[in-house]
Amino acid sequence: MKEALFTVGMKVRDYECDMQGIVNNAVFQNYLETARHDFLLSRDVDFADLTARGIIVIVTRAELDYKKPLRSGNHFEVTVIAEQVSRLKIAFKQTIRLQGCDELVMEAIVYAVALKDFKKPFFPEELKALL
Amino acid sequence: MKEALFTVGMKVRDYECDMQGIVNNAVFQNYLETARHDFLLSRDVDFADLTARGIIVIVTRAELDYKKPLRSGNHFEVTVIAEQVSRLKIAFKQTIRLQGCDELVMEAIVYAVALKDFKKPFFPEELKALL
Amino acid sequence: MKEALFTVGMKVRDYECDMQGIVNNAVFQNYLETARHDFLLSRDVDFADLTARGIIVIVTRAELDYKKPLRSGNHFEVTVIAEQVSRLKIAFKQTIRLQGCDELVMEAIVYAVALKDFKKPFFPEELKALL
Amino acid sequence: MKEALFTVGMKVRDYECDMQGIVNNAVFQNYLETARHDFLLSRDVDFADLTARGIIVIVTRAELDYKKPLRSGNHFEVTVIAEQVSRLKIAFKQTIRLQGCDELVMEAIVYAVALKDFKKPFFPEELKALL
Repeated sequence: MKEALFTVGMKVRDYECDMQGIVNNAVFQNYLETARHDFLLSRDVDFADLTARGIIVIVTRAELDYKKPLRSGNHFEVTVIAEQVSRLKIAFKQTIRLQGCDELVMEAIVYAVALKDFKKPFFPEELKALL
Repeated sequence: MKEALFTVGMKVRDYECDMQGIVNNAVFQNYLETARHDFLLSRDVDFADLTARGIIVIVTRAELDYKKPLRSGNHFEVTVIAEQVSRLKIAFKQTIRLQGCDELVMEAIVYAVALKDFKKPFFPEELKALL
Repeated sequence: MKEALFTVGMKVRDYECDMQGIVNNAVFQNYLETARHDFLLSRDVDFADLTARGIIVIVTRAELDYKKPLRSGNHFEVTVIAEQVSRLKIAFKQTIRLQGCDELVMEAIVYAVALKDFKKPFFPEELKALL
Repeated sequence: MKEALFTVGMKVRDYECDMQGIVNNAVFQNYLETARHDFLLSRDVDFADLTARGIIVIVTRAELDYKKPLRSGNHFEVTVIAEQVSRLKIAFKQTIRLQGCDELVMEAIVYAVALKDFKKPFFPEELKALL
């Protein structure tokens, strides 16, 4: 169902570009995180609130495929789909596409687990709300 | 040969920590890039000089395994080994370890290619110097 | 004329918050720069294009008054007014306000000059378009 | 007494440079903060520990004079002197200089206050240790 795909639009900020004149590779993880946290909010899960309550959701692995650079002025869309991939692990499948022309900029899978107070791993209700 | 392993020491900067009190996941790519560029310099290859000459080395894929969080005050070491993995592609195998206790913080493989003026992919002499 | 005030809306991104749970003080300059460059665009001046043409606009002084912290989820508005303050210097008077309640978050003045190829200071036509 | 001046050495990281090929103006506050927190540590005051104990030291004003740009490969030194400027306010006078040639890159004054749990302003013992 294409309707189910969570999508957020963003625009390159000039300070995100490095001396090559393109968005620095680390910044893409900022974009992906921002889209994930917006996705959480769309399911009534607030990352800051989780953190304040000692529910620490941390990235355990990221696979990032850089397909096209982003440049100053580019508008783009970041998508998120969540999937439970093991008893304790959730995977966020994400894409970044140039707005308008639909060109693929990045494909990524970001794996995460939740820890209670940085200790015991568990799968909180809040993550179930994402599936 | 352990002697051949390029290693650079760094320390967490407090602004790199996010609301969870640990280094944000995107920042690890900053650490990896900084170590790679230092590695290049150790082989007399200057990233800024490459860029100025139109040799654009870009990341095409990153696989990042987050093993342990980094916190304020942590000292750590980032390693780099380069390997040619196809006719045009170079892979940087990297680790981040806590200093002293040798605990593994991250394992990463970062793939890159070189483009002449953002166009034609090629394998410049400068990348050969890294192997 | 209140109509003349350039304003852009933004939202705090969670990675911009530091271990105190508020937006890190350096990030405010990212917000201010982004608003300035959007302001330039609204006057048909493209910062990346200026840079490519060797017109280097650099900040010479920033005065930043932090009135209220920003937190995860906050929506805010950044304003820009430009003023020529000497033969070669332009000043950007900027504010950041919480959206809705109009509460002042930051007042700032950012001074800038233009250099031709990092050398000779001048006052290009493009800056006149901002006044 | 020149001996009393706290100084920390750093090196530009390439991701800190923007499309102009120089360190982005916001990054200087990262450098200044890192030096301040190292200065705190040199007086046995740990910023992360303060934060964990609800002592929130926040910047209220920053005056930043950009004298010379920093570029890829530049080594530089950041200095810190602390001074109490009113009953509740501390000022950090800071400079950034190119290493070796001693050229001035930035002069800055950063004002800060301490809040107990983001509420009541006070002047904790820990700040007295900096004077």
